Amino acid sequence: MDEFEIERTGSVELTDPVLVEGLPGVGHVGKLAAEHLLKELKSDLVGRIYSTHFPPQVGVEEGLTELANAELHTITADEAELLVVTGNHQARDAPGHYGLAETVLDVAEDAGVREVYTLGGIPTGELIEEYDVVAAATTEDKRTALEDRGLVEFREGEPAGGIVGVSGLLLGLGDRRSIPAACLMGETSGYLVDPKSARAVLEVLQDVLGFEIEFDSLEQRAEEMEAVVRKIQEMDDGAAAAEEDLRYIG
Amino acid sequence: MDEFEIERTGSVELTDPVLVEGLPGVGHVGKLAAEHLLKELKSDLVGRIYSTHFPPQVGVEEGLTELANAELHTITADEAELLVVTGNHQARDAPGHYGLAETVLDVAEDAGVREVYTLGGIPTGELIEEYDVVAAATTEDKRTALEDRGLVEFREGEPAGGIVGVSGLLLGLGDRRSIPAACLMGETSGYLVDPKSARAVLEVLQDVLGFEIEFDSLEQRAEEMEAVVRKIQEMDDGAAAAEEDLRYIG
Amino acid sequence: MDEFEIERTGSVELTDPVLVEGLPGVGHVGKLAAEHLLKELKSDLVGRIYSTHFPPQVGVEEGLTELANAELHTITADEAELLVVTGNHQARDAPGHYGLAETVLDVAEDAGVREVYTLGGIPTGELIEEYDVVAAATTEDKRTALEDRGLVEFREGEPAGGIVGVSGLLLGLGDRRSIPAACLMGETSGYLVDPKSARAVLEVLQDVLGFEIEFDSLEQRAEEMEAVVRKIQEMDDGAAAAEEDLRYIG
Amino acid sequence: MDEFEIERTGSVELTDPVLVEGLPGVGHVGKLAAEHLLKELKSDLVGRIYSTHFPPQVGVEEGLTELANAELHTITADEAELLVVTGNHQARDAPGHYGLAETVLDVAEDAGVREVYTLGGIPTGELIEEYDVVAAATTEDKRTALEDRGLVEFREGEPAGGIVGVSGLLLGLGDRRSIPAACLMGETSGYLVDPKSARAVLEVLQDVLGFEIEFDSLEQRAEEMEAVVRKIQEMDDGAAAAEEDLRYIG
Repeated sequence: MDEFEIERTGSVELTDPVLVEGLPGVGHVGKLAAEHLLKELKSDLVGRIYSTHFPPQVGVEEGLTELANAELHTITADEAELLVVTGNHQARDAPGHYGLAETVLDVAEDAGVREVYTLGGIPTGELIEEYDVVAAATTEDKRTALEDRGLVEFREGEPAGGIVGVSGLLLGLGDRRSIPAACLMGETSGYLVDPKSARAVLEVLQDVLGFEIEFDSLEQRAEEMEAVVRKIQEMDDGAAAAEEDLRYIG
Repeated sequence: MDEFEIERTGSVELTDPVLVEGLPGVGHVGKLAAEHLLKELKSDLVGRIYSTHFPPQVGVEEGLTELANAELHTITADEAELLVVTGNHQARDAPGHYGLAETVLDVAEDAGVREVYTLGGIPTGELIEEYDVVAAATTEDKRTALEDRGLVEFREGEPAGGIVGVSGLLLGLGDRRSIPAACLMGETSGYLVDPKSARAVLEVLQDVLGFEIEFDSLEQRAEEMEAVVRKIQEMDDGAAAAEEDLRYIG
Repeated sequence: MDEFEIERTGSVELTDPVLVEGLPGVGHVGKLAAEHLLKELKSDLVGRIYSTHFPPQVGVEEGLTELANAELHTITADEAELLVVTGNHQARDAPGHYGLAETVLDVAEDAGVREVYTLGGIPTGELIEEYDVVAAATTEDKRTALEDRGLVEFREGEPAGGIVGVSGLLLGLGDRRSIPAACLMGETSGYLVDPKSARAVLEVLQDVLGFEIEFDSLEQRAEEMEAVVRKIQEMDDGAAAAEEDLRYIG
Repeated sequence: MDEFEIERTGSVELTDPVLVEGLPGVGHVGKLAAEHLLKELKSDLVGRIYSTHFPPQVGVEEGLTELANAELHTITADEAELLVVTGNHQARDAPGHYGLAETVLDVAEDAGVREVYTLGGIPTGELIEEYDVVAAATTEDKRTALEDRGLVEFREGEPAGGIVGVSGLLLGLGDRRSIPAACLMGETSGYLVDPKSARAVLEVLQDVLGFEIEFDSLEQRAEEMEAVVRKIQEMDDGAAAAEEDLRYIG
């Protein structure tokens, strides 16, 4: 097996697609958002990316195994044409992150992608009341376009450590290929898988790309999460213990 | 030396072989099972795989050294023809796991292997009374065939973290080559080298492949282990301390 | 993307340049010093080095992203012609450090560089009153030349662990290309980003290379740091706690 | 720079040389032994091996830097012709260990080497009174030849974890090239740099290869070490504390 292998399972038949990426990360916001798109909109699996930089394992569902991979789906919804990248794994090392991002961009360019949106969470360290979305972009034009819609914030010095992983590299490497790109980051505590943050990110995305989806299932999942949180808070003697207990319940 | 090198020490003369893998892992179940096959049945060493991804070391036995490797043996027993992979080491990094699995599959395809069984343990976190065997398969046909024999369980969401290492990748990468494959995982506490779990796995394997072996030596080893456990439990003040002490006694 | 890629953003038009390197390290002394040169002297960005061995991330400034890289600037000041390498990242692994240093030397040789100065800090473990500069060189000629100026010390057995990272490798690999090189290391506690140490290093460099710069902005930053330190010391119950609190405030 | 580079600084003019390796390891026994050979016998530096798998650093001695490397010296003494490999570093990863050992064997084969001795320590966990030497060999002939001299022991199951690093791989990979090889391991506590253990190893080596050296300087270093140990033991309240304090004083 090569370091990165693309397995095509269908042809991409889109005329003006946008790449949307949501892989595991802070609060699993990006992954939840991308999976919600696949759940709510008609999608076609067009390919999988395998890599020796993914964890050396198979997932098991109902007794059937699947080699670690990233999935590529196409979606046509209202005005929008999407090529969506999602999956259960990030690469395990720096060259793996770079190579995975390059491989995704190869597929995207091949499919005629004109711009890129990567989805993720930005950790605040505390439970969120109102889910703002922070953005970053590769070009001033893109930043201005997003700013003008009034739905996202560009904050001085945020995210503090930059944008790590494929969500960041699709911007950095996309820019080197002159593909405009932006990252939409939903605020999230960082302690919980966060469906509400995913909704906040998707509300921006549907406005920007011109499509509409339902959020009922995401909202229901958020309520289930909140019920768990309430239960733990009731049982809780103090904030520190709670943080420990809540870490990535999902 | 190349990253992976096959040293052939004999020719594989089997007409319809099945690949069986047992390398170190949880409870050393897979390794114990594969080694028991080699002990009880007439076997021929047909090759070794060396790799720069194995630990950089030689083992020493009776003053003689042997470079870290995985061994390939052939076995003919009753109706079954086996190509067995075993050894003392797993690869040390993700590309090493992928490369080792691919190398094993290269040898297996070359030998005309038609299906793959990987052997391992599934940790329960507590001492086991009855040793169930959990399975996972690459295809529905294979899953159905195993289910129909009534000897293994396919459990929703188990193993929780997927199947890691060569035991998992032989399924994932085997599937990409259209070789049907299954993993048989014996329940084991995860704290001890577990000969009884290895026996449970082998009982399934002999039924599936159509051969019979003795388990006396494995049973004797299990009794020795149990004597050690009893002794420690007698000395023990509490469960937590015991778990610590028993970790991988073998 | 290749492991190391040079993106040229301008041509190097220097007749007798010296390479000066300042990347993150102990007390961020080298990085502070190199950035101060770029701030005080007229400079041209002539290139960037990207690498799959850099952290897989983009930095974000005012909402705009930049892929992790090392920057190459040219400076002409008084008698001196400088090719300056700086940036926010070191490589993440040994082959990355070697490859980055080789790539910098390729650019430097291409630009006609005749000697190399790398800038860094040498940790003392205690707060510094007088900032001495310790040096190391690749050749006896270079050592003698530096010694004769009376501004640096060559100390037996210092730095104890050698010089790690690109600052060290530009000497070691430069020497293999017969490019004379020296490392200037400002004493620093090791607990704080240290502008005073950076000034001490630059005072040596300007004497050696024949240029003059202002230190006001560096001095101001040092005063801000010292105000923070005083505040913490006032609040402090003991030395041990202070060390912990001060670790890399910057 | 390639992953492994040989820099030749002289020609090897030996007719029947033996390779002797002593790199850093348990008790620094191998390194001390190899360096003592270079100190006591007339030697010529014939080459250096550089590698991107060595630590990314230069050592500094008297203000002059040297890129991390392994040195190759030739020695002619009495009946013996030696090609000695020593240095301050081991490779930092598994492929580095394999590659370094292969590179050393390439040089050795090129020089007509007919057998290999690697030198190291075997940790006992307690202070040693009488320094036995444990051996391991690649062939039964070699083991028998060493056994017959009565100076070394071949112990069942020792060293427990095999022989790790270049000392082990020169045997494992040497064997694959049909070069007979043995490892001589001096018993050592594992807490101290151990010149007495190095002497024990060299006494075996000089008997086997037919040369004689003085041990005065090694003995003096051992006495200095023992003075330090006595001092610490006097100050010491208990064995546990002492072990902690003595860790790798040298």
